Formats: sequence, C-alpha cells, structure tokens
Amino acid sequence: MTKNLLTTIGILGDGQLARMLSLAAYPLNIHTLALSLSDTSQGHGVTPLCTGSMNNLSDLKQFCAQVDIITFETENIPLEIAKICSQRKNFQPSADILKVAQDRLLEKELFTQLQIPTTHYFSIESKNDLTQALNKVGFPAVLKTRRMGYDGKGQAIIYDMPSAYSAFENLKEQELILESFIKFDMEVSIIAVRNSYESKFYPLTKNEHQNGILFCSQPLPKNHSLHPHAEKYAQLILEHFNYKGCFALEFFVRGDQLIANEMAPRVHNSGHWTIEGSYTSQFENHIRAILDLPLGNCEARSLAAMINCVGSIPQKQVILAEKNVHLHDYGKAPRQNRKLGHITLIGENSALFAQQLQRLKELIQINQDYSKINF
Amino acid sequence: MTKNLLTTIGILGDGQLARMLSLAAYPLNIHTLALSLSDTSQGHGVTPLCTGSMNNLSDLKQFCAQVDIITFETENIPLEIAKICSQRKNFQPSADILKVAQDRLLEKELFTQLQIPTTHYFSIESKNDLTQALNKVGFPAVLKTRRMGYDGKGQAIIYDMPSAYSAFENLKEQELILESFIKFDMEVSIIAVRNSYESKFYPLTKNEHQNGILFCSQPLPKNHSLHPHAEKYAQLILEHFNYKGCFALEFFVRGDQLIANEMAPRVHNSGHWTIEGSYTSQFENHIRAILDLPLGNCEARSLAAMINCVGSIPQKQVILAEKNVHLHDYGKAPRQNRKLGHITLIGENSALFAQQLQRLKELIQINQDYSKINF
Repeated sequence: MTKNLLTTIGILGDGQLARMLSLAAYPLNIHTLALSLSDTSQGHGVTPLCTGSMNNLSDLKQFCAQVDIITFETENIPLEIAKICSQRKNFQPSADILKVAQDRLLEKELFTQLQIPTTHYFSIESKNDLTQALNKVGFPAVLKTRRMGYDGKGQAIIYDMPSAYSAFENLKEQELILESFIKFDMEVSIIAVRNSYESKFYPLTKNEHQNGILFCSQPLPKNHSLHPHAEKYAQLILEHFNYKGCFALEFFVRGDQLIANEMAPRVHNSGHWTIEGSYTSQFENHIRAILDLPLGNCEARSLAAMINCVGSIPQKQVILAEKNVHLHDYGKAPRQNRKLGHITLIGENSALFAQQLQRLKELIQINQDYSKINF
Repeated sequence: MTKNLLTTIGILGDGQLARMLSLAAYPLNIHTLALSLSDTSQGHGVTPLCTGSMNNLSDLKQFCAQVDIITFETENIPLEIAKICSQRKNFQPSADILKVAQDRLLEKELFTQLQIPTTHYFSIESKNDLTQALNKVGFPAVLKTRRMGYDGKGQAIIYDMPSAYSAFENLKEQELILESFIKFDMEVSIIAVRNSYESKFYPLTKNEHQNGILFCSQPLPKNHSLHPHAEKYAQLILEHFNYKGCFALEFFVRGDQLIANEMAPRVHNSGHWTIEGSYTSQFENHIRAILDLPLGNCEARSLAAMINCVGSIPQKQVILAEKNVHLHDYGKAPRQNRKLGHITLIGENSALFAQQLQRLKELIQINQDYSKINF
C-alpha cells in the first residue's frame, strides 16, 4: 500500500480545459502545472503556469522535470513533443492516439478498420481525385482539411463541380479529405473514460451548433436506444489504444443509426454538463483515469444541459438569478466566436426544465453583445 | 448596468475554508487572496497568498490595497484588525457580529434578547460566582471559557462541587461562563445565507461528534418539523446584524425543542455536504452574498452526508472505489485531532445510503492510522 503523496499533473495547454482539470484536481489534493502551447500564454490565474512554451525544448524539459505525469487539453500536440514527454514521464492518454486524432483521414480509416459506421470518405491530393470522388459520393459533399479543423473551420460544403473546384483552390495548400454530406436528425457525442482495468460511459449527449460552434449540450434520457451502440463503438477505440483518460466520440444520428464523425482524446466541450449534472465530472474522471484510480459514477444525477457563452458572457446579476444555473466564466478576453464560458442548468421537472432551457438559449445567443442589452 | 470586472476577494485566514471559498469563486471568475492569521502560514497551493500576516500592520494594509472586498474564515479575528479592514474596504459579514461571536457570554445574551431559546448561563468571575450559579443550575453543568473554545477545547463538564472548583482552577486565567448541561437527543445546525435583499436556508443538519470534534453531518429530511423554527431563529440574527454572507447556528435538540448553543458568522464544517449535496454550495453562496449577487438554491439535491477525516486521511484507491463518494483532501500535514479533509456521500436509495454511510463511518474513524490498515 502506498502513502498519498502529492502528485503534480503536467498539462500541455493552458486554456479552459486545463483550468477545469485543475479545479477538479485540487479537492483530491492533486496539483497541476500547465505549459503553454504557444509563446504567448494567456494564463487564467487558476492552473499554475510553467514559464515558457512547449515549442522551446529547454522549457519543455524543465516542465517534464517538475511533474509526475503529463496529459494534454488538445489533440494538436506536435508528435515530436509528445514523444519527448513520453520518454521522460508517464504520458496519458498514450501518444499513439494523437497521430490518428490529428488527421481526419487516419481517423476515418480507424473507424472503418474497427467497423464503426462512418461517412464515405476519400483522400484528396489533386483536382482529379476530387472529380473522381465526387462522381462516387454525389452532391452535396464536404471538403475538409485533414488537420487542425475545429468549430467548422477548414471545411466547405460543396453543391456542384464549380463550388468544389473553388473550395479546392482555397484549401489545397493542406492535405484534404472529401466526405459525403450526412443529412442528420441530430448530432450526439459520447464521453467515455478508461483506466487500466475498467471503462465507464457518460450518457450520449445531444449537441446543437450555431455557426459551426457548439451551442448547447444535453444528455439523452437514460433509456435511449442509442446508448449501448455508442458505448460499444467508444469501447472499441479505447481498447485499440489501451487508452487511459477521458475520450470523446462524435456521431451524426440518422434514424436509428450512429455515423461516427470525429473523436477527441481528451475532456470535451460536450461533457461540461457533467460538472454539476453527473455524479463525477469528466474532469475528475480524467484525472482518476490517468492516475489509475477507481473511476467515478458517470450517470446523470438529474436533468442537465450546458450552453456555451461564445463571444460574450452574460452579466452575473442576470444569470445567477436563474434557479439552478451554474456559471463557468473562463476569465478570457471577449472576442468574436471565442468560447468564454458556459452555463449549466439543472432541473427536476421536465416541463419546467425545457421552458427554462429555451429561455436561457434565447438569452445566451452566440456572440450577443450583452453591453447593449438593457436587462 | 455594470460590466463584469474581475473581483478579488480578500480572505483573512488561509485554511481549508479559504481553500474551498477559492475553489467556489474561480468558476465565477472571481479571484481570492488569503492573508495568514499567524506568522507561519501553511498555505495549500490553491488560494493565492498575500505575503505576511494580519498581525503586521504594514502587511495588513498591503493586503487591503490588493483586494476589492474582505471576508474571513474564522470569527476569531482581533476586532482592531477587522476595524482596519472595514475602514479601507467593504468588510463582510460586518465586523459588528465578530465581538458577539467571539464571546460565549455575549452570544447567549444575544440569543436571550432575540428570544431564541438557549441554555441557562451565568458569567463566572470568581469561585463565589461559580458556587451561586451551581446552586441554581444544579449538576451536571458545563464550565467554558468565554473565548477561543472550539472542538470541545476550553470546557469541562462538572458533576459536583470538587470537580467544579478543580475545573475553575484550570480555566480561571480566562473569562468563564457556566451553562446548564443539556441532555440532548441530537445536535443540529442551520446554515443561512443573506445578501442585502434576500435570505435563504440550507436544511437543518444533524451533527455527530467524536471526542468533541464534528465527525458526521447529514441534512434532515425536507419535511422535518424543526426546519421552520431553526430558520426563524437564524433569520432574527441575520436581521439584527444586517448580515451578508453565510451564517451557522448550532442547536441542541431535546424533544421538539431547539436550544441554541453557538453561532459562527462564516461558512461552517457542518455545511460541507452542500458542495455536492445541494444545488449551490455554502461556499458559492457566501461569495454571492457578500458581493450582493442573487443567492443560489439551498435545497438538498438528494440524500447526502459528510464525514470528517480527522488525524488521517483515507487512501485515494480505497475511498474513490466507493460509489458516489467525493474526497476533499485539504493538503494538510497529518496531526492528532487535525481536520485533514472530508468526504461527501451522495445517494438516491434510503436503505442503501444508510448502509453505505455506516460502513464509511466505520472506515473513517477519527485519528485512525490508515498506514497500519491492510485494505
């Protein structure tokens, strides 16, 4: 039996996910140290920062020396940096998944290999590839960069050959993938968590987007027929990588069918509702998992929903007057399309909950300028 | 309408209550700065510390200059220090209550003035006072120091005149109070919270002690007949002081009668279950209240109970394997009778909850040396 020694988790990245990981770690008497992804760290006054940037080798080595285990808040960690960290410290989730999670083509190939339904996809290296692929997929289709796409960036919906060629000209400096366009009924995601001896699954969560940015997430009811299918697909990927930590898998839903869209080897925006809405938050479970501690209960405790505050954040006086609403203000400077915070709504009564959620969604429109509203 | 500016709350004290206030403040993008009560700060790596001690005037002034509002984690703040803070910054709860909360005699006089039932009590300044008081109260009775008593310290139960005189000799360097001994059915406390325009009340909570130290707290069921009485008494005190913040009032229960024992003008150990067990934690509500923000829902979300970890803290591997148990390890060095952390148990099913709580209470005995247990 080992004594409880003070553990410090190093986090690559110092954004809101690092912030919420820190807040979940402190009650367990686990400390965190963040290393900035860029040379201009924002910081937020919650996670202690390691001076420097991960792009500077000497900073990176110094960071590794100060921590017991390393994790990350984004999959876009250069592989050579993940390798340096892995050689020095326990690095979780394992760096093996980063290469795949950074590349939409490898991701889709993995889904196919594991027999997880996904979109039709084609690697596009030339205009000729594009023409051939479109002849198979038909219109509309989606042309995406293989790397660094998020919040709807780096992708174009194409409706005909001229718009396809025009999108290709815009994006062709990067490696591309063409995917069939899915007319979906809804978008959902599952957050799974695994340590070396068990896996647990949060309920499948329905996600609504505005302008390609996640706006609202809400767990589906406990008895929803899609849960076991999503769990099975997530489990296949966790086992494939002998994964430790939280893992998110996003799907389109068409009828009773799940179609895998993308994955993220980390805590995920669509799991922020778990802080108040589940028995154990995704942040605490990520920490438990990477340290190989027993995982906490992932069930929903009650009705719950999360709304992202994008571009602006509501006034505290207004939002805290709402019954059972929790504010998470990340302390970031306002900017168009920037995720500045989120709110969680908790409820007991379905009808009242739906009404209040609708009102809050109208109040918290993406990029709304609250300074101009007379509340 | 004001913009959301970054607010820094100064906290006099850097113990676990300051720590948990900080953790509740961060999601609201409110920062905290703690000033040590003594010259040897422990710190805990969560609340940023202001260098120095409140006993050094220059440190104290520098602290005041760095914060927007000041609160405290103990009522044992010297009144002159509270005065200095109040002259410089908004100081909440108001310093008026400190004088009373520091002195058992003034506390009892206030209860009497507000017609809140309390024990029979007598100020004891001499052996003669003691003899006369005991002739009225009878045996057993309790002799207590008026100041600085906590966790059963500074008090003696007396059964006859010889033990009374012996206790008097031990304690007579300090001002004393004699109280009737209450044969209670249980001990309870209510946490109330008030801003300038509303008050809210957490459910009355049953408290079990071991060796005079709080061991287990559990909110009473929603329909318990004592709730409205406790709320009425707490409200009288809140209004008397035009109080802002969280406030705790402890009672003995005898039959259907509440007998006020003592009060604390701050967040309170018997309210730690509210972090996971209520819709809004006492820590978040204290912050909301002192900043005059709307107060959060104080109802219990489900069955909940807290167990203090005193003298030792259980192994993470063991405690996190318990379903729906949350660990709060304050990061303090183990010491006999020292509160090192607490756990919260959440439940849905009454029978299973009671069983699990009983098992946890047996596991987490006060001062148990976990290093010697083979789990």
